[in-house]
Amino acid sequence: MLGTERSAQIEARLAKDAYDTEAWQMLLAEAQNVGTEEQHRDAFDRFLEQFPTSGRHWALYVEFELRHGRTDLAEAIFARSLREVLSVDLWKSYLAYVQRNNEHGGNEGRQIVLKAFETALQYIGMDKDAGGIWSDYIAFIKAGETSSTYEEQQKMDATRRAYRRVIAIPVMNVEALWRDYDAFENGLSRMTAKKFLAEQSPIYMTARTAARELKQLSEPLQRGSLPCPPRWSDKEMSQLAAWRRYLDWEKSDPLKIEDAAARYARISFAYKQAMMVLRFYPEVWFQAASFALEHSRNEEAIQILKSAIDIMPHSFLVNFALAEIYEERKQVAEARALYEKFLDQLSDDIAKMNESMTAEIAAFEAQHQRGGNIDGGGGADMATSSTTDAFGETDGEEREEARRLRGYTLAAIVMMRFVRRAEGIKVARQVFSRTRKSPHITYHLFVASALMEYYCSKEAAIAGRVFELGLKSFSDPDYIREYLDYLIRTNDNNNARALFERTINMMPADRAQDVWRLFLDYTCDYEELTNAKEVEKRYLAAYPQGKQGSMILIIIINGY
Amino acid sequence: MLGTERSAQIEARLAKDAYDTEAWQMLLAEAQNVGTEEQHRDAFDRFLEQFPTSGRHWALYVEFELRHGRTDLAEAIFARSLREVLSVDLWKSYLAYVQRNNEHGGNEGRQIVLKAFETALQYIGMDKDAGGIWSDYIAFIKAGETSSTYEEQQKMDATRRAYRRVIAIPVMNVEALWRDYDAFENGLSRMTAKKFLAEQSPIYMTARTAARELKQLSEPLQRGSLPCPPRWSDKEMSQLAAWRRYLDWEKSDPLKIEDAAARYARISFAYKQAMMVLRFYPEVWFQAASFALEHSRNEEAIQILKSAIDIMPHSFLVNFALAEIYEERKQVAEARALYEKFLDQLSDDIAKMNESMTAEIAAFEAQHQRGGNIDGGGGADMATSSTTDAFGETDGEEREEARRLRGYTLAAIVMMRFVRRAEGIKVARQVFSRTRKSPHITYHLFVASALMEYYCSKEAAIAGRVFELGLKSFSDPDYIREYLDYLIRTNDNNNARALFERTINMMPADRAQDVWRLFLDYTCDYEELTNAKEVEKRYLAAYPQGKQGSMILIIIINGY
Repeated sequence: MLGTERSAQIEARLAKDAYDTEAWQMLLAEAQNVGTEEQHRDAFDRFLEQFPTSGRHWALYVEFELRHGRTDLAEAIFARSLREVLSVDLWKSYLAYVQRNNEHGGNEGRQIVLKAFETALQYIGMDKDAGGIWSDYIAFIKAGETSSTYEEQQKMDATRRAYRRVIAIPVMNVEALWRDYDAFENGLSRMTAKKFLAEQSPIYMTARTAARELKQLSEPLQRGSLPCPPRWSDKEMSQLAAWRRYLDWEKSDPLKIEDAAARYARISFAYKQAMMVLRFYPEVWFQAASFALEHSRNEEAIQILKSAIDIMPHSFLVNFALAEIYEERKQVAEARALYEKFLDQLSDDIAKMNESMTAEIAAFEAQHQRGGNIDGGGGADMATSSTTDAFGETDGEEREEARRLRGYTLAAIVMMRFVRRAEGIKVARQVFSRTRKSPHITYHLFVASALMEYYCSKEAAIAGRVFELGLKSFSDPDYIREYLDYLIRTNDNNNARALFERTINMMPADRAQDVWRLFLDYTCDYEELTNAKEVEKRYLAAYPQGKQGSMILIIIINGY
Repeated sequence: MLGTERSAQIEARLAKDAYDTEAWQMLLAEAQNVGTEEQHRDAFDRFLEQFPTSGRHWALYVEFELRHGRTDLAEAIFARSLREVLSVDLWKSYLAYVQRNNEHGGNEGRQIVLKAFETALQYIGMDKDAGGIWSDYIAFIKAGETSSTYEEQQKMDATRRAYRRVIAIPVMNVEALWRDYDAFENGLSRMTAKKFLAEQSPIYMTARTAARELKQLSEPLQRGSLPCPPRWSDKEMSQLAAWRRYLDWEKSDPLKIEDAAARYARISFAYKQAMMVLRFYPEVWFQAASFALEHSRNEEAIQILKSAIDIMPHSFLVNFALAEIYEERKQVAEARALYEKFLDQLSDDIAKMNESMTAEIAAFEAQHQRGGNIDGGGGADMATSSTTDAFGETDGEEREEARRLRGYTLAAIVMMRFVRRAEGIKVARQVFSRTRKSPHITYHLFVASALMEYYCSKEAAIAGRVFELGLKSFSDPDYIREYLDYLIRTNDNNNARALFERTINMMPADRAQDVWRLFLDYTCDYEELTNAKEVEKRYLAAYPQGKQGSMILIIIINGY
């Protein structure tokens, strides 16, 4: 869009990886260097859509607009970001803007600035780095002109109030602020100073201790980094652990805040900061929501989980957590809709992945064809080496697909169980009947449905039919093992033996061993010796490498 | 007994460890140095009672008797040992003795010597180190005087037969023997030699290849070492592995022996050698017996296992293996008697161990008392340090005791199952009723009995009563988990919940977690959300460290 060769390279990188943070930084720099004002603005917008929690870049954007005299746009940016992005930098920039605008506004102007300070402190005053704003705020109060003793008294009260608020907060400069406060009180009256300072001292001491701990805890946190979906690198894991330590510390209430709402607000603020940086970690959102729920802030919990789902529509954790809240609140329709949407999302992803695999295979085959046509032998060599690569990747993709199918099925099972609880077994059976036809289902759905019939509706006969139905689509030894285990556990040994006999020879030997072992264990423990010996003999014929004598004895001894 | 200070030290070592091989060697040496003839004889007898498979020491013993002119005793030693101990040394010593005795016996004497050679080769001729005996044998045949062409012809035939037998065996000097044979045939007739050697050559080649492999396989085997109960050291494990490699090689039939009986004899010989050295490894005996069974040598298998039980009366493997053979042969009384004897053995061991623990504790307490009386503070210090030691040891002994009780119970379970198969459920119930009163029983007997009732006699009601009965003696969380699992699996959810409720608070929290998880999993998967949430809440109250939000979700996600 900027038209330069460099920008084309940058765009290519972003097309390949939408979270290539270096490329994003280059994009901003390139827009600044060669772009028009509009292009530069566009770059900011694109950047902040991708990284909406980066206060530093919001502040840069504001600065850019102000440099171009577009106060209207600067104000719009403030409106979009201030309340969402808990950034000291951004609020500082806002306060500077308000102060500049009201420099010559007289008393009315002063009131506007004071109001802005109050708002800022309300949003960001708890931040460990908000100490500068607090200093500015107090300085601004002190600088107020007074024309009467009453006004002077009022200013003094406001100053004292501000000091007392901040020396209870573990901001990094709390010690300097306490010295200022000390000087302030002593400047007024040595007598009252002694009393007041003695009163405030324990509060300040607690905050000072906390500030020291907080400094240590914050040191490893990279608050300024641009949030990206985790790749579970060591660095990411250690960031996550550092954040967890910090959150645990906040939850331990080191300031011993008496007021429950204030205590909640402080911990909630910590979670908000964590969610900004660890934007793509579902468990952080989940824990923030759980914390809200524990304090009966149900709406807040729902909002947190909704935001999390917007950001991470594939997350099982946050989707299930929200559905569970809906179910508890008897919002059956909402829960059902959420499950359906989640399943659709997973289904679409699988379809897209399959498409891209098909396309890749087609592309590979086309290339193979071409290679073969052009230069015979050499082409064949090339093709062979590509085949290996392509196959290696295909294996990985197949594993990925299996994982996705398993995930889809898990979601379907959770929904089916929810429907049974909320709408009864009949509706749950409908869900099962519909879902089982999906091409994305694994055998686990049949196991879950059968056991639901057995445990919840006590319908062993239906359970058996469900298992039997599953056998038409799935001959996976793991499925057969589950089915066999069910038959054994329900004492249906005729059917157990029948199932074993009609499936055991259909399974590849290297995957049938668990089924063999289950049946052999059962036979050895509970059937007649001739049966046991016969099964053992067949087992040893199927797995001659294990032929070291009696399996029965080996099972017994292993059991010991 | 020898009266020396040194011998007293040796006896003390042997009293402490009956398998202190170094002390045993010292005992023999001391008897030789300072003992009377009778004392030396006594030392040999004691030594060989402890190490009855040491051919070397049997040979030394014979030599000792011969040195003292006691041919009667020497012959008695040969009679005791030759057939049992497959020792080339011992047989060589015997052959030397026979030859010496018949040196001047004329033809009759020659026949005796020849017979002795034949017997020796029958027992030991397959040994890789028997090549010397074969050479001597051939030399002895060759040295025979002849007085007619007919006799000369006979001698030639006998020599040829002997050569042909040995060049088919992988003795270490088979190459030299082949060269001798080549010279022998060529010495008779170049014409027939060519034909005969061509005929025998493939057999010899196979033996030669096998001899080379055997040389390598035998290198790590310490055949001369005195067998001791294993302590599972690295050295012992690598010996075991080396023997296993050797046995596997023999079982692969590298000589491609056509005659089944001869093939069996050779492998059986390898097992016998292994059982001599790995005397205290039940699995070697078990495999030898299994090999015999596979070739329908049932009596031989029984004899092997009986010997193994004499040597290792505590071995589960060999006892169970023999009982299984009896059961298969419908020798119910023998099987029953064997199980009873095995249980008595285990029971006695536990009683003895308990006695020795009681004695130790008494000794410790007496010492403690004394220490306290004599020197107050210092004594208390001593006592404290002993306490730690004594307690440390007691812990180990308690673990050992638990292991023994578990073993006793396993044997009781195996017997109970055998009785059910062989004599029916009623007799099995009698066994259960009697056994459950033993002080050595663990809860596993109740689980086994209950599941036997459920699976074999389909008596769910009795199964429930058995579990309930067990609960009177056992509150082990593992037992409760088994019981709960049974109730859940049999869909008895009222009783499942009742069991959970009346036991969960009796269990120490650190051991109850499995019961909690089982019940929570079940509740989350199959019960109503309110139930699940309630159990979850109680779980989180019991285990606050896990309080990271919804357990239900964590179970679901973990399941994924």
